[in-house]
Amino acid sequence: MENQKKIIVIGGSAAGPKAAARARRMDEFAEITMFQKGPDLSMASCGFPYFVGGFFDDRNKLLCTPTGVVRDPKFYWNAKGIVARINTEITRIDRRKKTVEYKDLITGETGVQTYDKLVIATGATANRPPIKGIELDGISTLQSMQDADYLRKIRDEGKIKKAVVIGGGLIGIETLEALQLSGIELTMIELLPQLLTFLDWKLAKLVENYLKTKANVITKNGVAEFIGENGKLVAVKLQNGTEIPCELAVVAIGVRPNVALAREAGIEIGSLGGISVNEHMQTSDPDIYAAGDCCEITNLITGQKVLAPYGDLANLEGRVAGENCIRGNVATFPGTIQTGVCKLFEYGVGITGLSEEKALAAGIDFVKVINASPDKPGFMDGKLLVTKLIAETETGTILGAQCVGPGDVSKQLAIWATAIKGGLTVDDMVNADLPYAPPFSLAIDHSIATAHILQNKMHGLFEGISALEVKQKVDRGEDLFILDTRGADEYEETRLGIGETLIPVGMLRKRMNELPTDKSQEIITYCKISLRGYEAAMLLKAHGYTNVKVMEGGIAAWPFDKEK
Amino acid sequence: MENQKKIIVIGGSAAGPKAAARARRMDEFAEITMFQKGPDLSMASCGFPYFVGGFFDDRNKLLCTPTGVVRDPKFYWNAKGIVARINTEITRIDRRKKTVEYKDLITGETGVQTYDKLVIATGATANRPPIKGIELDGISTLQSMQDADYLRKIRDEGKIKKAVVIGGGLIGIETLEALQLSGIELTMIELLPQLLTFLDWKLAKLVENYLKTKANVITKNGVAEFIGENGKLVAVKLQNGTEIPCELAVVAIGVRPNVALAREAGIEIGSLGGISVNEHMQTSDPDIYAAGDCCEITNLITGQKVLAPYGDLANLEGRVAGENCIRGNVATFPGTIQTGVCKLFEYGVGITGLSEEKALAAGIDFVKVINASPDKPGFMDGKLLVTKLIAETETGTILGAQCVGPGDVSKQLAIWATAIKGGLTVDDMVNADLPYAPPFSLAIDHSIATAHILQNKMHGLFEGISALEVKQKVDRGEDLFILDTRGADEYEETRLGIGETLIPVGMLRKRMNELPTDKSQEIITYCKISLRGYEAAMLLKAHGYTNVKVMEGGIAAWPFDKEK
Repeated sequence: MENQKKIIVIGGSAAGPKAAARARRMDEFAEITMFQKGPDLSMASCGFPYFVGGFFDDRNKLLCTPTGVVRDPKFYWNAKGIVARINTEITRIDRRKKTVEYKDLITGETGVQTYDKLVIATGATANRPPIKGIELDGISTLQSMQDADYLRKIRDEGKIKKAVVIGGGLIGIETLEALQLSGIELTMIELLPQLLTFLDWKLAKLVENYLKTKANVITKNGVAEFIGENGKLVAVKLQNGTEIPCELAVVAIGVRPNVALAREAGIEIGSLGGISVNEHMQTSDPDIYAAGDCCEITNLITGQKVLAPYGDLANLEGRVAGENCIRGNVATFPGTIQTGVCKLFEYGVGITGLSEEKALAAGIDFVKVINASPDKPGFMDGKLLVTKLIAETETGTILGAQCVGPGDVSKQLAIWATAIKGGLTVDDMVNADLPYAPPFSLAIDHSIATAHILQNKMHGLFEGISALEVKQKVDRGEDLFILDTRGADEYEETRLGIGETLIPVGMLRKRMNELPTDKSQEIITYCKISLRGYEAAMLLKAHGYTNVKVMEGGIAAWPFDKEK
Repeated sequence: MENQKKIIVIGGSAAGPKAAARARRMDEFAEITMFQKGPDLSMASCGFPYFVGGFFDDRNKLLCTPTGVVRDPKFYWNAKGIVARINTEITRIDRRKKTVEYKDLITGETGVQTYDKLVIATGATANRPPIKGIELDGISTLQSMQDADYLRKIRDEGKIKKAVVIGGGLIGIETLEALQLSGIELTMIELLPQLLTFLDWKLAKLVENYLKTKANVITKNGVAEFIGENGKLVAVKLQNGTEIPCELAVVAIGVRPNVALAREAGIEIGSLGGISVNEHMQTSDPDIYAAGDCCEITNLITGQKVLAPYGDLANLEGRVAGENCIRGNVATFPGTIQTGVCKLFEYGVGITGLSEEKALAAGIDFVKVINASPDKPGFMDGKLLVTKLIAETETGTILGAQCVGPGDVSKQLAIWATAIKGGLTVDDMVNADLPYAPPFSLAIDHSIATAHILQNKMHGLFEGISALEVKQKVDRGEDLFILDTRGADEYEETRLGIGETLIPVGMLRKRMNELPTDKSQEIITYCKISLRGYEAAMLLKAHGYTNVKVMEGGIAAWPFDKEK
């Protein structure tokens, strides 16, 4: 047809296919071509760790529609009328002529194709450190289908005994789980003082402590060299000189946006190194859109640009780019609150919105609280959740929530992500009307209880202190009266051993005489999750004590090895 | 102390204890007394079905704090400084004198106690139908700890073989599961044409079809008589004359607010029969608050008063009443969106906000859609969710969501409940930034996909039709071209058998010649979940067909017995 719109999409992983499919739905007669450099299309790349870890065995499940049809070029042509060219690299975008130049990586054939609208969805590439030995056999990333096949083969062969994962971010964590489940002894190596830097220190430490029950964890240390024998990895040497024998190293130290094509074409690149787009996913060239990991997008809370290479956002961005290619700029993708979650064995770990560190960096005045309590009643086998909630001081607007633990973390994050999207405040969430039945939640859901505690704090009903600060005070030898308000049997089982006095909260009214006579003495109260610690603090304040602090999250949030 | 505030709380189940505890936290020195007519305090009554069903064995878990301390009067005194009088009935409120009169039901002792502020939390009573035989042995409700003990004993003894549950609401459903898990053959009897009347017909039918795999279900039929021998139930006789042999009948036909005390004291009762309160949970007497199942509260979407006897709301209302008793009307409970959920074997079932029926009754213009798709990727063993989403036509503001299925229903409802609370629109939810990782959700979460489909519908991209309407059209013999767009293997496995033509969506472009030549012919498209049905509809419209409808939710939402 003469008036057919010509759409070209560069990239066939997540944002690209979504853009192409959306464009097709908007215009049955457009000519749509999608170029993919690699051999596979629409890989569920977030599923790679679960394939490697043996959650399922058929690799095709990563490439299939829900009904089991492999998303290959034939599928794209038959089901969607989209030409998908695999193993074909775009080598140049000519914006003046509105063409792309391509090269078939199998046949070597080259060609030129014209577009009316172009979508760049070139994704990101896993960083590989420029370290001696990086070329050895046994060093991988977990980014491509080929990486997944390689690591899965290692699982199936069962020969490798020791491996290291370099980088304690989301992908590193997921990769570690996958390899550990393959029966390999794992060591995690992280250059920074904590894993999962999108979390604040304390929650990251809770994760680290848990992870240490599954693997070795080394922080504040990087890899200096990969040591090989006969071209094969046999050990990694750390910056402090330690050598860790291993036959496999997976590097997961982040990704960087693939912007070379865009940059060469003169398209604007942002200060973070991603392609600049507006809320329509349109680049500095009005006929060119971009979507997915190659872009910079807006953080909706701070208004700042961020790189947010998440599979879910890539899909949403692709949808918008695809629609706008056909219909003009009618669809918008306003931005992200950088919600992220991962599974780590029996734990869920994640965040939505701002961490304390990011809120500080953004210069926002905020209040915060940590709540540790179960997701469901004890009689329904409820499991612990530790949530850190952050809200704007003046308005109470929710800014961010981090959640960690064996409980239902993803539901908690979904609630907070939606609350942030809705501009809800702590006061709003105090009376949230969430689905309650014992198989699913407590009568007062963990999220609502967290809002209650933060509201109490905002109303000045209590003053909180973090476990870390308590530990620092103890280490500095400050004059504290530390009050454990749990039962004697609980105390027998676990105690912090920091000079605390045990007075169960139920005995406190009768045993006030055991408390300091000086009413200005600094007192720290806690229990298992600091609910009783909070009650004790209220009681002490009512009896005239002026410097009472509740250790937030209680023993459950204590990020150090417990002492008996 | 002379200036001690005197607080009296009537009721010791959920709202009462919460009000008393909150009042204590607000004022360490107030004199707080809580009266409970029965022997137990703070029973987790929503947990009764799970005790009866054998999810746990220790009844004390229903009465304990998370650390295993039974919440008896001693606990309330020691831990909270609250006098809790059990087995003690309040017989009169004298508002002029500001006193309550009480009677100890064990000793017969009576007395009078004065209050400054009073909280009425008298709860609700399960309805029992005034039917012949209702006094027989073997007829119970599941409202009290005593009921739970009675039914649990039946489980443990294992003698009873057949039972009926009368009433297909939340409690009836939960009770049925509990008894079925006890090895009893169950029959559910519901007077109305559908179970779970808070759901719209179609979703209720999905639940009913599932329930029929576990128990007998009789709708549109009530109990006319309980038939006994030697004082023991042996059968129920239905209104149509059928007799169902059974040794146990549990009546779950709703509850009514206990307002006799309040009414006799001249406190305003609302038109629905609950105590009238303002947003501070204050009654028509400024010194008297009320909370929990005995109150009428506001539906935040319609502005109308409703009875919402849910345990979670009782707690939130009690918290507000308790705080306001001490601090004046500083705390508010704005109302409910009537979120409810229950577990039914492997299914979750629930709603938040308005159903279609309620939106119609409220005179609101709305759009709606049904989406059936999994909660997680197939490779992570994702399970089906069927969601019906309702939004205001003009603004797109989310009004309500119903969700049913073996997938993670409670998370979906939590997302929608928070979205409604935040006044979010379909356009907002289209770009929601929810926690994504394959163990927890699809890359495009089921909730977001539901918003996408509704947005498409609002933009006129497709016209939907419910399966029920399709069936009615087929039954009326209307001239339809019904197009099943699934694969041949899927068709081989299940088909609707309503005269459909099978053309897999991937073949459709090549097989357009098999479609009607009359472009105005009414065409219905569908697939398993109607995603491919939707693609087919877009394609047909693009080729000039003007009357194409997508059967919403596809075969997964087809509420009738499938035919092969």
